[in-house]
Amino acid sequence: MTYAFVEEGHVATPAGFLAGVAACGIRYQRNDLALIISQSPCSAAALFTTNKVQAAHIHYDRAIVQRNTGGIRAVLINSGSANACTGQQGIAAAAAAARFTEETLALPEESVVVMSTGVIGVPLPVDKVCAGITSATGNLAAGHGPAVAHAIMTTDTRPKSCAVQAILPGGGQITIGGVAKGSGMIHPNMGTMLSVITTDAHLNPSALDIALRHVADVSFHCISVDGDTSTNDTVLALANGQSGYRIPYDPRLPDWQAFLEALTAVTQHLAQDIARDGEGANRLITISVVGAANNADAHRAAMTIACSPLVKTALFAADPNWGRVMCALGYSTADLDPERLTLRFGAIPVFEYGQPLDFDEQAVHAVLDRAEVFIEANLGLGQGKATVWTCDFSYEYVRINAEYRT
Amino acid sequence: MTYAFVEEGHVATPAGFLAGVAACGIRYQRNDLALIISQSPCSAAALFTTNKVQAAHIHYDRAIVQRNTGGIRAVLINSGSANACTGQQGIAAAAAAARFTEETLALPEESVVVMSTGVIGVPLPVDKVCAGITSATGNLAAGHGPAVAHAIMTTDTRPKSCAVQAILPGGGQITIGGVAKGSGMIHPNMGTMLSVITTDAHLNPSALDIALRHVADVSFHCISVDGDTSTNDTVLALANGQSGYRIPYDPRLPDWQAFLEALTAVTQHLAQDIARDGEGANRLITISVVGAANNADAHRAAMTIACSPLVKTALFAADPNWGRVMCALGYSTADLDPERLTLRFGAIPVFEYGQPLDFDEQAVHAVLDRAEVFIEANLGLGQGKATVWTCDFSYEYVRINAEYRT
Repeated sequence: MTYAFVEEGHVATPAGFLAGVAACGIRYQRNDLALIISQSPCSAAALFTTNKVQAAHIHYDRAIVQRNTGGIRAVLINSGSANACTGQQGIAAAAAAARFTEETLALPEESVVVMSTGVIGVPLPVDKVCAGITSATGNLAAGHGPAVAHAIMTTDTRPKSCAVQAILPGGGQITIGGVAKGSGMIHPNMGTMLSVITTDAHLNPSALDIALRHVADVSFHCISVDGDTSTNDTVLALANGQSGYRIPYDPRLPDWQAFLEALTAVTQHLAQDIARDGEGANRLITISVVGAANNADAHRAAMTIACSPLVKTALFAADPNWGRVMCALGYSTADLDPERLTLRFGAIPVFEYGQPLDFDEQAVHAVLDRAEVFIEANLGLGQGKATVWTCDFSYEYVRINAEYRT
Repeated sequence: MTYAFVEEGHVATPAGFLAGVAACGIRYQRNDLALIISQSPCSAAALFTTNKVQAAHIHYDRAIVQRNTGGIRAVLINSGSANACTGQQGIAAAAAAARFTEETLALPEESVVVMSTGVIGVPLPVDKVCAGITSATGNLAAGHGPAVAHAIMTTDTRPKSCAVQAILPGGGQITIGGVAKGSGMIHPNMGTMLSVITTDAHLNPSALDIALRHVADVSFHCISVDGDTSTNDTVLALANGQSGYRIPYDPRLPDWQAFLEALTAVTQHLAQDIARDGEGANRLITISVVGAANNADAHRAAMTIACSPLVKTALFAADPNWGRVMCALGYSTADLDPERLTLRFGAIPVFEYGQPLDFDEQAVHAVLDRAEVFIEANLGLGQGKATVWTCDFSYEYVRINAEYRT
């Protein structure tokens, strides 16, 4: 292990990043706007939702990150309005907020990325946002990273921040920080609700892009709360080089592998936090599928279990109703032969080679009635494997989503 | 319209069908076993789940219907045990129950089809089932069709039966009846939870098969309660010819079209009943997608809306949260351009050509706060269209599925 988590680490833990927040009254009576700035230009890489209905900020950011991939200076995030399905007016509002941030902070044009989260169809109130930018600019500090995690919450019940420090094989010491939000409409496909990853390592934009895509496949792309892929999913990585240590892209170099390992730790931590804080969730459920014909099959099978409302309601009740897991496996489209399959809840086998097993119901119930639950299916067909994270499906999910908007 | 619904029609309404029920104590303190028999051999056609984990009865029936497609005499259905994930023992139990039915009723070998519904992994208690067969055989009557619909219920709150009478263009008068069950684990793909369709029309087995596949695509394949495709989905059609009227397969013949129309009426009625009685449901929701690039896109888009937990929880609260419908459309994989799209709740437009519309929230709430709700999306791209049915997602769904087994 070449890295260690920083106690109470956050998005502004890496050198040269500052954060500020403000309450601008878009929807909540609390901080609802966050600014993350870098003291020097950043390499930037971003992943956006594959949903064909895309929020205004995605249209705006895609162009900015492409045109100015080595010169991004700040990220502006608001909660309360998703600024999605708001037409050309919405894109103009996103651009206006970015421009006002650049002017206020005397940053170059096209150096600010924007992100929105909240209710779809609610226009972004540019006047309020600009007042918030002025206010947030007045309280920029590295110590305000944790406040960012609070300001960008919607139905989240907990802020999601972390940071790791790594000493790389080549001797350099770098820090990676991150923040995320997400609780509902979580089934990321090329990005998740919202996340910003910062590092003081020096990477060129294409290396950062490769690294971000690599780690997203084992973190943000491995979680689901409700199967709904959002219109706003965005993951942004910023590398400002302030550690003075350069990591070139070369998969054979120990430094590259160590960097990926540390970056994976940050993104998996945030992804698991999102699943753990899924709307109405009581448990973080880790689903491992091994022995699949290939990794893609394993991922599909694990995600199908993770998305089954019947599996998730059973786990809410800690009910060892393994038949529902078998059912989900069966319709997952992964190669499957029940005669070769074994299924475990925690360490306890419940089904083996086509046959249900006699097991101690109370013991399995106890294994499932915990804050962290593990399910493993071994398909017995090959070397493919995948691990994904989800949560249980409770009354609270229904209450939150029946009451969210009105 | 060449057909009319029969008041309180059921699976034994067509001539020459009888039904019997029994309480054999598999799981419930009520009738849990049903027999449907035909007084003469039937042409049979069946659709089974595409889930790779398949109930024992599906392994058994697939072979029987193939080998004896013109000579099926009876269907035996039990609730309380799905007889799925029960290995070779389960298939042997299904075969034993079929054999005992044949002996008791003095029917030819391989003339009885069996179906099971209930908890996965629970073995079928053959002794109890045989006692039930003896008892059900003692009360066979055409008037017991409605009792079949009750006996096969699991989490269903209402029985699902109907029948239509049709006078065909060629002068023949025929009757089509049907029974179905299903409330959870409903997302049929080649069949639904359980349904038996009977008719006294004379069709040869291949014509019946073509007709069944045709109507399933606009009925059972157009509903979803929870996105979980069951291990047990089975639709069986039986034609005993007792009306004396023969319907040859020829798509150009008015008789064939009229028969399809009447068969569609029965299967759509049952499919809508299943969606309306979805676990915890308060509303039947009809989702129409028109103007899609093609019918397949329209079906995918409509089913994606029908499966979104966020759409379904909003509709539980009658909340006009149209952004969630847009979100689901966006990740449906159907061709889509928000700038061409219009969306209506009931008759009220809420989104048009890339822009949210000002609408009267209370008026839309009133339109959604009904037992039957209509949503229409016009994608503005082509002639593709599809209509599907689903239900809202309530606290009750969670309660039912967290409590079902334990």
